[in-house]
Amino acid sequence: MRITVLNGPNLNLLGTREESHYGSFTLADLEDQMRAHLASRADVSFYQSNQEGDIVTEIQKLSSRDRLILNAGAFTHTSIAIRDALAAVKVPFIEVHISNVYAREEFRHVSYLSAIAKGVVAGLGVESYLLAADFFLRSGVEAK
Amino acid sequence: MRITVLNGPNLNLLGTREESHYGSFTLADLEDQMRAHLASRADVSFYQSNQEGDIVTEIQKLSSRDRLILNAGAFTHTSIAIRDALAAVKVPFIEVHISNVYAREEFRHVSYLSAIAKGVVAGLGVESYLLAADFFLRSGVEAK
Amino acid sequence: MRITVLNGPNLNLLGTREESHYGSFTLADLEDQMRAHLASRADVSFYQSNQEGDIVTEIQKLSSRDRLILNAGAFTHTSIAIRDALAAVKVPFIEVHISNVYAREEFRHVSYLSAIAKGVVAGLGVESYLLAADFFLRSGVEAK
Amino acid sequence: MRITVLNGPNLNLLGTREESHYGSFTLADLEDQMRAHLASRADVSFYQSNQEGDIVTEIQKLSSRDRLILNAGAFTHTSIAIRDALAAVKVPFIEVHISNVYAREEFRHVSYLSAIAKGVVAGLGVESYLLAADFFLRSGVEAK
Amino acid sequence: MRITVLNGPNLNLLGTREESHYGSFTLADLEDQMRAHLASRADVSFYQSNQEGDIVTEIQKLSSRDRLILNAGAFTHTSIAIRDALAAVKVPFIEVHISNVYAREEFRHVSYLSAIAKGVVAGLGVESYLLAADFFLRSGVEAK
Amino acid sequence: MRITVLNGPNLNLLGTREESHYGSFTLADLEDQMRAHLASRADVSFYQSNQEGDIVTEIQKLSSRDRLILNAGAFTHTSIAIRDALAAVKVPFIEVHISNVYAREEFRHVSYLSAIAKGVVAGLGVESYLLAADFFLRSGVEAK
Amino acid sequence: MRITVLNGPNLNLLGTREESHYGSFTLADLEDQMRAHLASRADVSFYQSNQEGDIVTEIQKLSSRDRLILNAGAFTHTSIAIRDALAAVKVPFIEVHISNVYAREEFRHVSYLSAIAKGVVAGLGVESYLLAADFFLRSGVEAK
Amino acid sequence: MRITVLNGPNLNLLGTREESHYGSFTLADLEDQMRAHLASRADVSFYQSNQEGDIVTEIQKLSSRDRLILNAGAFTHTSIAIRDALAAVKVPFIEVHISNVYAREEFRHVSYLSAIAKGVVAGLGVESYLLAADFFLRSGVEAK
Amino acid sequence: MRITVLNGPNLNLLGTREESHYGSFTLADLEDQMRAHLASRADVSFYQSNQEGDIVTEIQKLSSRDRLILNAGAFTHTSIAIRDALAAVKVPFIEVHISNVYAREEFRHVSYLSAIAKGVVAGLGVESYLLAADFFLRSGVEAK
Amino acid sequence: MRITVLNGPNLNLLGTREESHYGSFTLADLEDQMRAHLASRADVSFYQSNQEGDIVTEIQKLSSRDRLILNAGAFTHTSIAIRDALAAVKVPFIEVHISNVYAREEFRHVSYLSAIAKGVVAGLGVESYLLAADFFLRSGVEAK
Amino acid sequence: MRITVLNGPNLNLLGTREESHYGSFTLADLEDQMRAHLASRADVSFYQSNQEGDIVTEIQKLSSRDRLILNAGAFTHTSIAIRDALAAVKVPFIEVHISNVYAREEFRHVSYLSAIAKGVVAGLGVESYLLAADFFLRSGVEAK
Amino acid sequence: MRITVLNGPNLNLLGTREESHYGSFTLADLEDQMRAHLASRADVSFYQSNQEGDIVTEIQKLSSRDRLILNAGAFTHTSIAIRDALAAVKVPFIEVHISNVYAREEFRHVSYLSAIAKGVVAGLGVESYLLAADFFLRSGVEAK
Repeated sequence: MRITVLNGPNLNLLGTREESHYGSFTLADLEDQMRAHLASRADVSFYQSNQEGDIVTEIQKLSSRDRLILNAGAFTHTSIAIRDALAAVKVPFIEVHISNVYAREEFRHVSYLSAIAKGVVAGLGVESYLLAADFFLRSGVEAK
Repeated sequence: MRITVLNGPNLNLLGTREESHYGSFTLADLEDQMRAHLASRADVSFYQSNQEGDIVTEIQKLSSRDRLILNAGAFTHTSIAIRDALAAVKVPFIEVHISNVYAREEFRHVSYLSAIAKGVVAGLGVESYLLAADFFLRSGVEAK
Repeated sequence: MRITVLNGPNLNLLGTREESHYGSFTLADLEDQMRAHLASRADVSFYQSNQEGDIVTEIQKLSSRDRLILNAGAFTHTSIAIRDALAAVKVPFIEVHISNVYAREEFRHVSYLSAIAKGVVAGLGVESYLLAADFFLRSGVEAK
Repeated sequence: MRITVLNGPNLNLLGTREESHYGSFTLADLEDQMRAHLASRADVSFYQSNQEGDIVTEIQKLSSRDRLILNAGAFTHTSIAIRDALAAVKVPFIEVHISNVYAREEFRHVSYLSAIAKGVVAGLGVESYLLAADFFLRSGVEAK
Repeated sequence: MRITVLNGPNLNLLGTREESHYGSFTLADLEDQMRAHLASRADVSFYQSNQEGDIVTEIQKLSSRDRLILNAGAFTHTSIAIRDALAAVKVPFIEVHISNVYAREEFRHVSYLSAIAKGVVAGLGVESYLLAADFFLRSGVEAK
Repeated sequence: MRITVLNGPNLNLLGTREESHYGSFTLADLEDQMRAHLASRADVSFYQSNQEGDIVTEIQKLSSRDRLILNAGAFTHTSIAIRDALAAVKVPFIEVHISNVYAREEFRHVSYLSAIAKGVVAGLGVESYLLAADFFLRSGVEAK
Repeated sequence: MRITVLNGPNLNLLGTREESHYGSFTLADLEDQMRAHLASRADVSFYQSNQEGDIVTEIQKLSSRDRLILNAGAFTHTSIAIRDALAAVKVPFIEVHISNVYAREEFRHVSYLSAIAKGVVAGLGVESYLLAADFFLRSGVEAK
Repeated sequence: MRITVLNGPNLNLLGTREESHYGSFTLADLEDQMRAHLASRADVSFYQSNQEGDIVTEIQKLSSRDRLILNAGAFTHTSIAIRDALAAVKVPFIEVHISNVYAREEFRHVSYLSAIAKGVVAGLGVESYLLAADFFLRSGVEAK
Repeated sequence: MRITVLNGPNLNLLGTREESHYGSFTLADLEDQMRAHLASRADVSFYQSNQEGDIVTEIQKLSSRDRLILNAGAFTHTSIAIRDALAAVKVPFIEVHISNVYAREEFRHVSYLSAIAKGVVAGLGVESYLLAADFFLRSGVEAK
Repeated sequence: MRITVLNGPNLNLLGTREESHYGSFTLADLEDQMRAHLASRADVSFYQSNQEGDIVTEIQKLSSRDRLILNAGAFTHTSIAIRDALAAVKVPFIEVHISNVYAREEFRHVSYLSAIAKGVVAGLGVESYLLAADFFLRSGVEAK
Repeated sequence: MRITVLNGPNLNLLGTREESHYGSFTLADLEDQMRAHLASRADVSFYQSNQEGDIVTEIQKLSSRDRLILNAGAFTHTSIAIRDALAAVKVPFIEVHISNVYAREEFRHVSYLSAIAKGVVAGLGVESYLLAADFFLRSGVEAK
Repeated sequence: MRITVLNGPNLNLLGTREESHYGSFTLADLEDQMRAHLASRADVSFYQSNQEGDIVTEIQKLSSRDRLILNAGAFTHTSIAIRDALAAVKVPFIEVHISNVYAREEFRHVSYLSAIAKGVVAGLGVESYLLAADFFLRSGVEAK
């Protein structure tokens, strides 16, 4: 099993971004914690971009054998292109958010992605990613 | 640490309820899996009710030292009384759903509870509960 | 064939409740008329409650061999829990109303139940129940 | 007592129209079943048209002594002219539908007619008509 | 004259509930203040429940000679069943709120009850109840 | 100058239709009053139909030298086809209503026609027609 | 019979205001034309103000024997106070507009006044006033 | 303590205005009853205007030591200027209404003022004012 | 293969209707161009009506072997009856428009028909029809 | 060039009004700063009123040679009368706000004025006025 | 004449993407079919990108002599930047879609582009492109 | 002090883009005018991109000591990612627009950015940028 973690715009700013929403860990910390957590249980690769199109292209490279943990950041609420890419490659994915998006501005309450996701984990900081990975490892999720 | 799992209306029907949404496990199975998963790591108690008022009352009994995993079922989308009880006792809680509510009818996309939750885990079956428990165990969540 | 008649909140007040909407017959009258109408054609049982949760629980007891005549009263417009119970047990049911809900306040024009009902009979007083029963008796309705 | 059955657009296609919604009986079958059902209990006349204006005109011919069973089909959701005709002649009428309109597209959930109808019977196939007729026969409905 | 005070969900938590909204007095304090305020001027009885159905049932017991002070709490915004009970028994009632609901979340700005209330008193703490009582005592309010 | 008066659906029922909205005069009375009022000042012709398409066709026969007084009745609120016919022939027209449509159901407050009308006269009974005619006679309205 | 003509804000600018909407006549021209038109048939008085409150006060001075021609200008769409004054004094009034408000910005399509007016005349320039006066003179309009 | 009572547009018409909403007492009666009720307990001053701007200016004269009882009438639903004046002077105020605005037209259900009021008393006739005064006298309300 | 071209209301006015939207060709020109374009490649028949019901009836005559080019004109936006006829006969059809409806009034942006069409061609004048025909000729479109 | 500065309701309270929104300068300070800033570059006149009608009247006095800096305060969001006055006199104007209205309550996000303004400057305190003046001085803005 | 075909995000996945919506042909197949179809009739160039900005830039390179066939994919529904680029270069373009977007999710029913397009061709697979090209070749479309 | 000017999509087209909205100056002209205006008063740097992600990245490079003049063009109305970047780096910025966006299409009236901006300057052409710079130079704006 191969796990891919895709992070969208501004997640490269973790550590300096609003601490009340995003905590004080950096993107590198997140990746380290994730590697340590997965240890030998699964391969993991990371990708971050501020470009909607790059995220689309990166998703297109996935095969249906991949398992995707996707924090599309602001694009969650605005990008139909990312949804279309996900629907096209049919990779099982979990939508994750560090902050509890449902407790923030109303425009963060809607997601173009969650309707085709396996599930959603939001508001639990780095744990949102770790728990999503645990889900893929413990359950034999089949591609849709 | 004490973990309480509250299940709302119709979750007593697990095992016979729409399998495509809810899987084939029963409420007893869920509780057994949860106990096995937590093992000696934390005390856990379970409560299920089809009555909105009973869930309100049960939440009122929690102290701020409790950690709550709450699947309010249909009440998620209709009960301000449950929200008020949660806001009053200030117990840290995670809103969980077995099915991916965001992929179902539009009235399931809104929640009175998530704005005051620590976070949300949806769509991951029994794992939604196990992962929520893992979160409480791994992080020292403080009461709001 | 077994026919169950479930009446929701305030239907125990029939006879004293707004006569222009609900007529002057009591709930006991309604039950008597129903028994007389069905005579030996089918078993019939009655249940009334002002509690949403009790109605959920009562629906859960039905098997798919039952035929349900459901006047959920005010809960028609507010209860997703009752809808979920009906969807779970898959009992064929007809949504009935004594008054013509479509001629009253706008909040009575929407129903969480009718989308999964076999059909709807509204505005015809006691006859709404009798006609629903006739439907079940004359047609061999299969469970969905 | 004289019962008039008015059928709106496309109901002349019964028997070839979407079977899952409308069953396999033809309009002639429906009329035959209705005549057999009423037998000597009441006079019955039938009218079908695909023209909104013809239905308006046909309604205008009714006197307040008539009892109308009206399946306005698609015009239910779009015709204020038919509503106005019904309000003008003040004939007691029941709005009927073969299919459960509340379980179909959202634009079928609104009716210009039901607010001034005696009642509504929907989703019960040919029985929607038979039950409406039974209602008129059993109750001495007065004109509004 | 007999005055009944009905309190809805979570009002049993007064004293521990969000102080900025609800002050620091308990439900017992409220009842004591009320009894002292009324002294010999009127009989007063109290009832609190977290169950929507219990409140419906309690309202049904009132006769049109009673005067009702009703703080339905969260049910104010969600319960058509309580509205129906009030409309059925026709008891004159004043809707009261401890906090200023119009200064809080938007879902607290709508009430199913106020359209059939005698009046509304909101935001004045315990005084909301005392003033409502004074109104009933000073004016000879007739049942609607 | 030639004045054409077009009346839409149900206006042939004047005299028997809801008197509080439409008065007690018949369509023939209206036409007589109009002829008397215009006397030798202008030619006048009348047309009434319950068919949307017939009204479209009648409008198509007008040249830009005609002056049209149009009471499209219920079609005012639902017919884009009539609007399109009016826009195509570019005949100056005044939208008239016997009743004050703005004081009735909300669906009567919107008109597909008034945005391209010369003006609107509503609520003044037969006078709505007479005044519209006076306008055409006194002002040298040019075609748009 | 006494006819009062009330003109709201900016109608004192007639003659210099957007000619395509309001024509080239001045307020004095309008008043002269009106006096000439009425001649000895009725007393007429005029009032114009840019102040909402002054219009309220002026309406308050009317008795139910007056007949009011009211062009409230922009206040038509924003003033509940003027509506309340009209409802209080119960003077029969016709809402008039020089321009066709229904062919302009959407915020001019709604009126707080028309629901309680006798009728509406819009889009006919000075004639809107003259025709409204003719209506009052020809019909024996009683106060509501 | 000094209590100021501000009444908005058309409240000078009390006694002649719709009796079903406003009762039969005049503004002078209201002021007399208020003075008698307060007797020596507090100074009271009265102001009424039909002008939004005058009410703004009058509010600006208040200091934070004043206590305001404000019935802004129609301006309640349309005036942001009055809200801004209240927010600027920070005087504690209670929004009062003689009629139950929540039982009337939908545009009376929204208030620009209540979100910054201490509380709201509606529907209780003259008592709405007396009870608001009692509140200020019994509780030591501090300025916000 | 047989191609039917159905034109709705006001399309008989082509050539005299707003040239900026509809060009200067007549309906006869359109039909001639279409015959010339198809030459021997397919049979073609034409029908135009201003009556919604006639178009419904004409669609009902089609068999599933026909291919339909449908410009329903204004009925595109208002007729559920035409949609129902198309759904009933299941004839493959392309919705065409001469003008670009998406660049005109907002009420022309919604279509009851396109959701069940094979496709839509809009804004290309006569070519909208010719291209739709080419599509049917080049692709072996099967009935749905 | 003559520059006129119009300030709407409550702007006379500057200096005592919410400092976080409006700073600590008074209206006199603002006028002084403006005079100093313009020095000999242009004539400047000031006007402030809490009355919507006075502002309308003041705008009416402007000729198209004037340049207007308009902070209509709360009237920005509610006054069509002011918009109409501006459209009538066609004076070039810039809408200014001291606070960033787009960062405050949603009802401050809409303006009746900005659609016909030359431009908008918001959120920059006194500078909003100074910058608007600079714009007029540096560019030869022609009347619309 | 030079024809440019711009394809937006995920259209590089044709052939592997949801076959029910997009068929089984690849982007290379589409380009081959297009070249064969145009043969010597016109030059054609192709561009595909998953980046909104790249599409904007590519559109900026077009001169008004170009003819554009644009399938902006998901960006159709979300990109104002692409609309602005099209409006700036004023190139005549046809919006095309392979699938019938009007038969899919509601968010695909709105387009930022069609209001400024020459026309729209949707739902006809590869033919959507071929027919758009035929249009440009047969008609002498002038730049707007 | 360092001032950064960020221009979004299509602003590189200035000079050829719709002149009525954007004037006839080029982006180079704008930059030259800005440099001349600032002269030695502040450093200034310019960046333009059609890529949302590039603008996000460019904003991320700013420190809180920078002052940003941001014309995000079309992204103003669609990009939450840019808002998030601005919120993360906390740089004080002014949102500027060359054209008066409030006088154009409705989708240009909403901005994801203005709620967190220092202020907004719109509609004043090149001056929008110059005035924003003047603001930063004259006031000692502190980072939020």
